[in-house]
Amino acid sequence: SGLVLVKNPHLDLMEEDVLYHLDLGTKTHNLPAMFGDIKFVCVGGSPNRMRAFAQFMQRELGLAGAGEDVADICAGSDRYAMYRAGPVLSISHGMGIPSISIMLHELIKLLHHAKCRDVTIIRIGTSGGLGIEAGSVVITDTAVDSSFQPRFEQVVLDDVVVRSTELDKDLAEELLACSRDIPDFPTLIGHTMCTYDFYEGQGRLDGALCSFSSEKKLEYLRRAYDAGVRNIEMESTAFAALCGLCGLKGESCRFHLL
Amino acid sequence: SGLVLVKNPHLDLMEEDVLYHLDLGTKTHNLPAMFGDIKFVCVGGSPNRMRAFAQFMQRELGLAGAGEDVADICAGSDRYAMYRAGPVLSISHGMGIPSISIMLHELIKLLHHAKCRDVTIIRIGTSGGLGIEAGSVVITDTAVDSSFQPRFEQVVLDDVVVRSTELDKDLAEELLACSRDIPDFPTLIGHTMCTYDFYEGQGRLDGALCSFSSEKKLEYLRRAYDAGVRNIEMESTAFAALCGLCGLKGESCRFHLL
Repeated sequence: SGLVLVKNPHLDLMEEDVLYHLDLGTKTHNLPAMFGDIKFVCVGGSPNRMRAFAQFMQRELGLAGAGEDVADICAGSDRYAMYRAGPVLSISHGMGIPSISIMLHELIKLLHHAKCRDVTIIRIGTSGGLGIEAGSVVITDTAVDSSFQPRFEQVVLDDVVVRSTELDKDLAEELLACSRDIPDFPTLIGHTMCTYDFYEGQGRLDGALCSFSSEKKLEYLRRAYDAGVRNIEMESTAFAALCGLCGLKGESCRFHLL
Repeated sequence: SGLVLVKNPHLDLMEEDVLYHLDLGTKTHNLPAMFGDIKFVCVGGSPNRMRAFAQFMQRELGLAGAGEDVADICAGSDRYAMYRAGPVLSISHGMGIPSISIMLHELIKLLHHAKCRDVTIIRIGTSGGLGIEAGSVVITDTAVDSSFQPRFEQVVLDDVVVRSTELDKDLAEELLACSRDIPDFPTLIGHTMCTYDFYEGQGRLDGALCSFSSEKKLEYLRRAYDAGVRNIEMESTAFAALCGLCGLKGESCRFHLL
């Protein structure tokens, strides 16, 4: 049916669903009227970048109001920022799995309550590249954990549930095809490694703590490259697992900074 | 010596240390001049609340400029917000362990570069209470994981390193004594459970996914209570582990919302 799947039997029994961190709710807002026609959701870490992206989409789509400022739909909360440009929703998710996970739970419920159909979700942003040209864009085929496995371990109460982290292969190919229309836009498809930490977890030598040598770091990153990893960031496994379970066609594209 | 400990031999070899997510650095900023007299650091999730807290401290300390707006020291970055009021630094850390961990790595390096001495760090904010009166403040003696164990598992490259999550007991008692001076301010010392997820991880029935019954949730929360847990949030184990390792006298105080 193209609807977003919410796998929670308790939700139907609730009189009101408050999306706390988005400052939205089923009683306070007419979610179908506000969001029913959304077809694309783009998410990224930084609120400023997601505002700039919404403004860019407004210009690209030739929408009325292009060039003007866009309003933050979640202005009543400083946890996330949300903007829309026609059928495109642009939302920030902060840094790390717990932060994107809260946003995705509430976004998925929002799309469910709004009765949106055939929604595509794309994560955009920056990442650390691995053995690739600076300025490249990596389109993720599979998100992997720090052992290079395609899995996301979610603690549910005190059980560990293992979830798949495959992303939509057709969408990845479609995005790769788009990149070919733009000159000087190095783009590739590869695995993305997701860590819980920017410093020790990514083999960085410049954190407040660092107990490993640069040789050990290089050996680890070489093994990651050999396993197909082309970039490293901090949200992709949770993104892939949640989107996959809820029937959202999802993809992650990250720009590799120098 | 009271100095902050940075346990990273690579740092001394670096010509410049860029604190990326704070938009500060050793070459671009005179960190000892800007921060050398800092004695207290208060951290919390929300940037707006941390600005309000800095303004509150300005008034409480009777500082010049009290009542006026305070400037965001990290204005060049939208990852975190930082304000100061006399010897007190007030910084936001976003939501979840990865987000607070990035901020703490850079804050600890900042305090190190600035040669600060005898710094006390206190985490403030909201949490979910467990079997306690709404509006209570929980002062954490020990942060525990979802199995109620006093440990923080940090992935370093592909190794798992287990770290202690005890907090400063004397500081906890000192803060509890302060609370007694204020009428109608229910305050207690207890364990704080730290999860990686707000919905499934905390036994909430209102997420986009929920595979457990309300009976199973209650049974889990009852076990948590019996293990000494009095509130649940998403950052305390990483906070306790990092502060402990780097010689920062740390404490976590959370206000339990209804």
